[in-house]
Amino acid sequence: MVRCKVEYMEYTSNFDSSVSNEILFDTLKKERKEIGYYELVHQDVNEYIDYAKSVKQQNIVIVGIGGSSLGTYAIYQFLKDVKDSTKRLLFLETTDPLDVKSKLGAININDTLFIIISKSGSTVETVSLFKYLHTLVTFDSNNLLIITDKGSPLESYAAYHQIKSFEIPQNVGGRFSVFSAVGLVPLAIVGMDIKALLAGAREIYDDFFEKEKYIELFNKARFYTEYKYKYNINVVFSYASRLKGFNQWYVQLWGESLGKIDKENSPQGLTPVGLVGPVDQHSFLQLIVEGKKDKTVTFITVKDFKETVQIPDITLHGLESMDYLNGIDFADLINYQAESTITVVTDIKEIPCDVVRIQSIDESSIAKLMYSYELLTSICAQLLKIDAYDQPGVEKGKVLLKKALIQNQIEGV
Amino acid sequence: MVRCKVEYMEYTSNFDSSVSNEILFDTLKKERKEIGYYELVHQDVNEYIDYAKSVKQQNIVIVGIGGSSLGTYAIYQFLKDVKDSTKRLLFLETTDPLDVKSKLGAININDTLFIIISKSGSTVETVSLFKYLHTLVTFDSNNLLIITDKGSPLESYAAYHQIKSFEIPQNVGGRFSVFSAVGLVPLAIVGMDIKALLAGAREIYDDFFEKEKYIELFNKARFYTEYKYKYNINVVFSYASRLKGFNQWYVQLWGESLGKIDKENSPQGLTPVGLVGPVDQHSFLQLIVEGKKDKTVTFITVKDFKETVQIPDITLHGLESMDYLNGIDFADLINYQAESTITVVTDIKEIPCDVVRIQSIDESSIAKLMYSYELLTSICAQLLKIDAYDQPGVEKGKVLLKKALIQNQIEGV
Repeated sequence: MVRCKVEYMEYTSNFDSSVSNEILFDTLKKERKEIGYYELVHQDVNEYIDYAKSVKQQNIVIVGIGGSSLGTYAIYQFLKDVKDSTKRLLFLETTDPLDVKSKLGAININDTLFIIISKSGSTVETVSLFKYLHTLVTFDSNNLLIITDKGSPLESYAAYHQIKSFEIPQNVGGRFSVFSAVGLVPLAIVGMDIKALLAGAREIYDDFFEKEKYIELFNKARFYTEYKYKYNINVVFSYASRLKGFNQWYVQLWGESLGKIDKENSPQGLTPVGLVGPVDQHSFLQLIVEGKKDKTVTFITVKDFKETVQIPDITLHGLESMDYLNGIDFADLINYQAESTITVVTDIKEIPCDVVRIQSIDESSIAKLMYSYELLTSICAQLLKIDAYDQPGVEKGKVLLKKALIQNQIEGV
Repeated sequence: MVRCKVEYMEYTSNFDSSVSNEILFDTLKKERKEIGYYELVHQDVNEYIDYAKSVKQQNIVIVGIGGSSLGTYAIYQFLKDVKDSTKRLLFLETTDPLDVKSKLGAININDTLFIIISKSGSTVETVSLFKYLHTLVTFDSNNLLIITDKGSPLESYAAYHQIKSFEIPQNVGGRFSVFSAVGLVPLAIVGMDIKALLAGAREIYDDFFEKEKYIELFNKARFYTEYKYKYNINVVFSYASRLKGFNQWYVQLWGESLGKIDKENSPQGLTPVGLVGPVDQHSFLQLIVEGKKDKTVTFITVKDFKETVQIPDITLHGLESMDYLNGIDFADLINYQAESTITVVTDIKEIPCDVVRIQSIDESSIAKLMYSYELLTSICAQLLKIDAYDQPGVEKGKVLLKKALIQNQIEGV
């Protein structure tokens, strides 16, 4: 209830639709004390690094789904080709039997560390796969690691069998957990500099909370939420193949955090779409340019690819008209392609768009991008008056599945 | 202009908003004579098969983007794990320099057949990569194949150097070309039964055009186009990891064909979203269930995975409550997960949804699915009064890019 007294009358209302920047910032500062992901930037990660150093295996298989794998995959896929690691990460996440068979068939299972990640410790896909793995591997503290909530069924398994485990802080949700043990431990094992990751995220944290540079994110969130009926689709158009994993992580973060019933019992939700350029210039761009104007577009480009692959200065018979490509670096070409598309889209007044230019293919760049998106999601949720951190809409399916499987077992007896 | 004479008056109008099923069917039968993809089901493919048999290399690299690669990838990704081929397909499509380096670094380039695919014969990405490959490989008719339009710059290259080439029929557009040489030749090389593929597509063709079983597709297309403002997003939710490629192909087909300015100069477009279950139950499902009701959902399930991977009948300490999973096949589990999600979504009245159950992981199943989607796209385009087969919205970007690159060359001199 807001009360205000103006000169000519007294006025009382329960309208709270307009939230000033100061109030919004105060709310987020309060939320920072309750919701755990904000403060992950101040963690001590030496324990993770020490554990990582002790790992001898070449294959690191993450058994986890959704928030337990998408963030790690995003960072790994972004950095793996510029890292000189002999170790590689693989992800077992689905219950598709062909997927399970082909992924496990491709590795030497005796040279593999399995990391079982589940916040609740009872995720159906993860536990099913973990059980199945028991038929292939004899687990001990050398080839198994557990990452889960304190007190979960998986933690109980780990304690009983004296398996090493790391804890996910109770107040850190799955899709906001990339900078917890969930992401940092596997990434440290395969040679990523997790201190540099956290330093990148901390830079954004400091800018936002300490230097109070929040206006840009606030304006973006206000636009998205004020125009939620007109522009119900938010496209991220990334010009680098290695941002494909980031796109998938963004889709989960945005979709699952913001697709909610609000305080007034009205369904909210902004639909995320992740595109990769230049490939999706040949797929989705036509729809953006000439289709219904129901999309915002955020372009992401990489300033420095740190890789020189040049188109040679040769003329091919029949293709003489394409000699304007000669001598160009692929890194420049992809950025020219990005700029051409940005110009085309920016010139269309009815398409709201913005451009994020990240520095390079390194830990700091990806961490800054991801932490900014976490903040943006939290701000949008405040403005939409929803809880960004739960996911009640998927519970009913879990109950139905359990019921069906128990029924199947009874009938099978 | 429609004229009709009723008993009490004569009436003239130029309304053509309501198209009867008969008129719609007649229009498609006429379009079948002009637009080439419809009749690809009646091709003789023996020439493709003979060529495929002559290929000795282990690695087959497709250099092509958009319509030149997505359909082939969809079928390859669907079938590769159930095929016993020593050959493998790889796709070079982007100008991302790190992508180019890492993909080429992973194969023995001397044991590789390169297939350059471009309808126009002058696609920037494809020609750039082709030029670059000249610095690594000495091309001859043994390690190079060209697939392009008759009379294109690439065909001229092939003729001059006596390189084998296959033609893309002029009236077959890129994103509708999967059942032409574009898809069939590479797929035949890696051991797919392309006659079975065409037979699957032909079954759908016969049902539609010969047996006139068109009502189901017509109704679906009518719903999508009549509710285009309320439900502007069409989700395909596939319950099999190997439909990920199909999803990407669908996104291009739907987005680029239907995102158009219509006859009345009004921007049209239905936004495609591709999801894979159960992974995206942990990502996008929350948004479908509790978010704004602006999406239709099509579930795709696979009846028979032809693979038995069973969850063992064991009890793990701490995880006793999960023993209801014991003894279940992963193939059954994923389908139980699909059915639970389908039940949840179907129960929500404001989410229009349908279910497609495909038979198995084989050529016929994927071909039927893809050909049906091509037909559905053509029908929707008729109802939206747009041209499904062009893509004028992406031309401006190409012009800008060329201008920028030529400018760069002049300045570089």
